[in-house]
Amino acid sequence: MPRSMRIATALAALAALTLPIAPARAAAPKTMAELLATATAGDWRTLDPAHTLYVDLDAGRVIIELAPHFAPRHVANIEALAREGYYDGLAISRVQDNFVVQWGDAGRPVKTAARTLPAEFSSAVTPAAVFTRLPDVDGYAPVVGFADGMPAARDAAGKTTWLTHCYGTVGVGRDNDADSGGGTELYVVIGHAPRQLDRNITAVGRVVRGIELLSSLPRGTGPLGFYEAPANGVVIRSVHVAADVPAAQRVVIEVLRTDTPLFAQLIELRRNRADDWYKVPAGYIDLCSVPLPTRIAARR
Amino acid sequence: MPRSMRIATALAALAALTLPIAPARAAAPKTMAELLATATAGDWRTLDPAHTLYVDLDAGRVIIELAPHFAPRHVANIEALAREGYYDGLAISRVQDNFVVQWGDAGRPVKTAARTLPAEFSSAVTPAAVFTRLPDVDGYAPVVGFADGMPAARDAAGKTTWLTHCYGTVGVGRDNDADSGGGTELYVVIGHAPRQLDRNITAVGRVVRGIELLSSLPRGTGPLGFYEAPANGVVIRSVHVAADVPAAQRVVIEVLRTDTPLFAQLIELRRNRADDWYKVPAGYIDLCSVPLPTRIAARR
Repeated sequence: MPRSMRIATALAALAALTLPIAPARAAAPKTMAELLATATAGDWRTLDPAHTLYVDLDAGRVIIELAPHFAPRHVANIEALAREGYYDGLAISRVQDNFVVQWGDAGRPVKTAARTLPAEFSSAVTPAAVFTRLPDVDGYAPVVGFADGMPAARDAAGKTTWLTHCYGTVGVGRDNDADSGGGTELYVVIGHAPRQLDRNITAVGRVVRGIELLSSLPRGTGPLGFYEAPANGVVIRSVHVAADVPAAQRVVIEVLRTDTPLFAQLIELRRNRADDWYKVPAGYIDLCSVPLPTRIAARR
Repeated sequence: MPRSMRIATALAALAALTLPIAPARAAAPKTMAELLATATAGDWRTLDPAHTLYVDLDAGRVIIELAPHFAPRHVANIEALAREGYYDGLAISRVQDNFVVQWGDAGRPVKTAARTLPAEFSSAVTPAAVFTRLPDVDGYAPVVGFADGMPAARDAAGKTTWLTHCYGTVGVGRDNDADSGGGTELYVVIGHAPRQLDRNITAVGRVVRGIELLSSLPRGTGPLGFYEAPANGVVIRSVHVAADVPAAQRVVIEVLRTDTPLFAQLIELRRNRADDWYKVPAGYIDLCSVPLPTRIAARR
């Protein structure tokens, strides 16, 4: 699997050195890298610093894009919690293999933010919302695709929409009461998409960079992956809204837009892999397998 | 999410203390734990030591169940490679986030085993094979379910079958040539199910214990998650076929059988979660979300 790809890369490099006899139309891209090389500036968007979180660990920075259109009250509350320093110094309390990393502290006092909010498990589709629909069937929802750059679903009538739980999805822990969450406990999916959580918990965004800092943490050995010795947990040094960080200390992340012809091409390229390694194209892609490329832009 | 479950457990414990006024039929199990408590000895099977691998790292033991009915020649060859010590002392060379952990060394000489074998991407369905079919649609295959305790798929006519790539699936790395693998490079899935690999590579089994020792490894920072400094990799101390290990040093693992009424109940319980935490049952479960419980049996 890996050697082949390295070989393919070498061959692609060699091919790039070949001089064409006559000017020819560029061959159709066969890989994601080839396709992304054809992207224009308009195929990318910059993360909105007002709704971007920097979660700083000793090992580095995890960057979360929040989804204010899907969970407006929770997103605003999480930003308020970050601004009042609620998360700073919290230990990561849970790392359950093939499921979630989680942090929070039910005992820590909340200052200006709310401790709990009414659930935002789904929301009304607004007429202007752009939804890039996947062409294939999904078992968990009538319609799935991408909205605001996030994996999402809709009901059959197109009236309600919700974020789906894929690798990297960020959500708000709650107790049995649907309205018992508010953002004081957050989790990040680090395993196979737990789609059964969709519409059962408020999802608020997704990790766009640095998830490997979370997914590689030692697994908790207590029930549900909780750390048995809380002091062993990795500490969250701070959580900041990117807009509050001096511009020189920001990382300007660009994310591939999901409402462009290029993104539709990317979906098709991944539904039917065309590179030399694959022998049987799948003819299908599930929502959580669609890549959402990001890149670091030059500082502005 | 977590606190709720702890509360649910506490409530279940309290409920167990309640004295019923009249003898009542046991309530239908609402959770997997409650269902497994009703399992009988016949609902479990013991791993066959002849087709079980112990992958020993400094941090502990990873246990792999091989699938000889799906990939007989590759399984036999991997057992031969283990017996000639091929894997002993190899460094893990690749940890790609949300994809695979991989080890192998194309340069290490093979003694009695084969370096390459004809691909076993799929195999003929044998009349006696028991297949527990999932009730719902799957995007990647006409029919999916479980055979020999492994997630698997079949074509519409029921003529061919193949192992599917779920979290924990073990497969054989290869180059672009379909027949270029043989077991000298092995990978384990540590992310969202890469089902596009199905029928493109020879899958040989799955990790039944200890995957967290692999999934929590630091991610490689080179292309495709390869470690840039190979010496930084974790070393595989040894790989043994369990049957070759003295009985006193074996771990006797029992795995829930997938061809029983109890397993069908488990699927249904996970398609529609019935515990107090869930508000909207999914009415669906994808193949790679079905749990395959294991337990350590008393030594025999």
